[in-house]
Amino acid sequence: MAVETNLNPNRDEPLSSSLASPLDSLADLVSDDLSAVNKIIIERMHSSVEMIPQLASYIVAAGGKRLRPLLTLASARLCNYAGDKHLGLAAAVEFIHTATLLHDDVVDESNLRRGLASANAVFGNKPSVLVGDFLFSRAFLLMVETGSLEVLRILSNASVVIAEGEVLQLQTTNDTGTSEEAYLAVISAKTAALFAAACRSSAVIAGRPESEAAALDAYGLNLGIAFQLVDDALDYSALPARLGKTPGDDFREGKITLPVVLAFRRGSEEDRVFWRRVMEETVQNEGDLEHAIELMTRHDTLRDTIDRARQYGTIARNALSLFGDSLEKRVLLEIIDFVVDREY
Amino acid sequence: MAVETNLNPNRDEPLSSSLASPLDSLADLVSDDLSAVNKIIIERMHSSVEMIPQLASYIVAAGGKRLRPLLTLASARLCNYAGDKHLGLAAAVEFIHTATLLHDDVVDESNLRRGLASANAVFGNKPSVLVGDFLFSRAFLLMVETGSLEVLRILSNASVVIAEGEVLQLQTTNDTGTSEEAYLAVISAKTAALFAAACRSSAVIAGRPESEAAALDAYGLNLGIAFQLVDDALDYSALPARLGKTPGDDFREGKITLPVVLAFRRGSEEDRVFWRRVMEETVQNEGDLEHAIELMTRHDTLRDTIDRARQYGTIARNALSLFGDSLEKRVLLEIIDFVVDREY
Repeated sequence: MAVETNLNPNRDEPLSSSLASPLDSLADLVSDDLSAVNKIIIERMHSSVEMIPQLASYIVAAGGKRLRPLLTLASARLCNYAGDKHLGLAAAVEFIHTATLLHDDVVDESNLRRGLASANAVFGNKPSVLVGDFLFSRAFLLMVETGSLEVLRILSNASVVIAEGEVLQLQTTNDTGTSEEAYLAVISAKTAALFAAACRSSAVIAGRPESEAAALDAYGLNLGIAFQLVDDALDYSALPARLGKTPGDDFREGKITLPVVLAFRRGSEEDRVFWRRVMEETVQNEGDLEHAIELMTRHDTLRDTIDRARQYGTIARNALSLFGDSLEKRVLLEIIDFVVDREY
Repeated sequence: MAVETNLNPNRDEPLSSSLASPLDSLADLVSDDLSAVNKIIIERMHSSVEMIPQLASYIVAAGGKRLRPLLTLASARLCNYAGDKHLGLAAAVEFIHTATLLHDDVVDESNLRRGLASANAVFGNKPSVLVGDFLFSRAFLLMVETGSLEVLRILSNASVVIAEGEVLQLQTTNDTGTSEEAYLAVISAKTAALFAAACRSSAVIAGRPESEAAALDAYGLNLGIAFQLVDDALDYSALPARLGKTPGDDFREGKITLPVVLAFRRGSEEDRVFWRRVMEETVQNEGDLEHAIELMTRHDTLRDTIDRARQYGTIARNALSLFGDSLEKRVLLEIIDFVVDREY
């Protein structure tokens, strides 16, 4: 594999200093709560084994827009929750997310995350695996403190599904025969399951009926699918000038995302020979990434991927129709547009 | 590093076909329960993502003496527990153990486990990390089904401590300045914490008073410390003829265990130059392992390590004095002797 580009895989998270306005609205709405969550996060990554808080704070504190815990906090408010268990819950959700990032970067052999050297690149793979385990375990301790077995069930189950999605993704990597259905199964599991659980569990601690929990689950799930679809399109279309985002990470790894699935299906036999070489054999030469993007543009696969994200966004929007108008609801709806229309 | 030997790191588990008699007594005592646990283990490693049960069954089903779940089952009987929640609990304990084995082998870059190629050697590091996460998550789902938040607290906390112990071990690896205290902190955390939690949580589901839970915790903790001390001595002293066990894994990795700590302290300055070369720089030549064993023998460090194990065994024995005589108690006491006196 060759393809030299200016690596900068902000594919999952923008720098926190560059938050777009809907996320700012959300953060403003729950700003006291978010400060409390950040405090819990700092406290609970503490350990007498020094390397743990060093590595954990490197990844937890450095950037990240805290989208998942923000969803937990906003969902709790939407459910008129008056207690304080949503704070530890939101921290637990962020810890689970962070643990999966640490393990992902080891699995993907990534060297960069959020524009910085990844934790595994700085500290090595070994502590990254183990600190991931630490954060995951701390997440469960935090959930125990909510006193809700149902919350533990929801997030244990989401963690099972995330791991399944990651393994499924390994199986589809380098396989140009991957179907749209298989791709959607991967992103529903690896990304959207935690969004869904982050929202649903707030309804549970607020003691709301299952109809509302299910509505928030559906909101989170579909928002998460939209989020990952856009992420996967941005890996081929983001402007390097925007936040240093540079396309091509998925391409280099031979990760089969919807823009590739569609381009492979819609292309000529000659195109398919190209896709097999670059994605299956990962034999990549200078100009290959540009040619891939050209094929995606010719077959409208990036546009169609964003369109698909918009459709899932609509489902997420409809899921909230159960709830009356409120500031919280309006912000949650704005988040959908932010996720679909973001350019990084 | 060189030192070519016939690798076969049964350091953690003997082959199941070669169980020594006290473990057989224990398995007999709880044989119906153990069958039920094995059934749960098989069921709960299932996933529609095929690679997961393939990899999980490779490590879960292939050998392993099920020591930790056996302790959970026997502790439940000692507490006169009449329900069936100890079964899922025992399966959860085994899943946590298996998840840590999978991650350990990735971290240690091990190629063999229980005399067979390790999962990471067969399936690769990536699925090993992710299937570890899967089993860990499934363990928490199993614990949720016990309906006991206290069980979840105990095992979440043990998982935090295990991760801390593993990171601490990374920090002491290749450091000949490691103290006995640091070594004991490592093995108490990475090994003994799960033994303690496996025993304590049975008292909790049985609704026994804290005094009994604490007694079982102390039994498990000290048994676990003894177990790891013996393991670490066996890495230098096991006879290759016994179950194919071959010494030297820790040596090759530069892992600082008590036999090395003591030999370094008791040795001459010339010895310390040797230890620094082989353990810190891991510059190892033919004959170095034999020389290391010779130094350990000269300074009685292997014998003293086993003696230390025997002392922790005595503490474990005393911890059970709270309980009246019973078949279960006698088997738990026999386990101590088995752990200390085993030759593999």
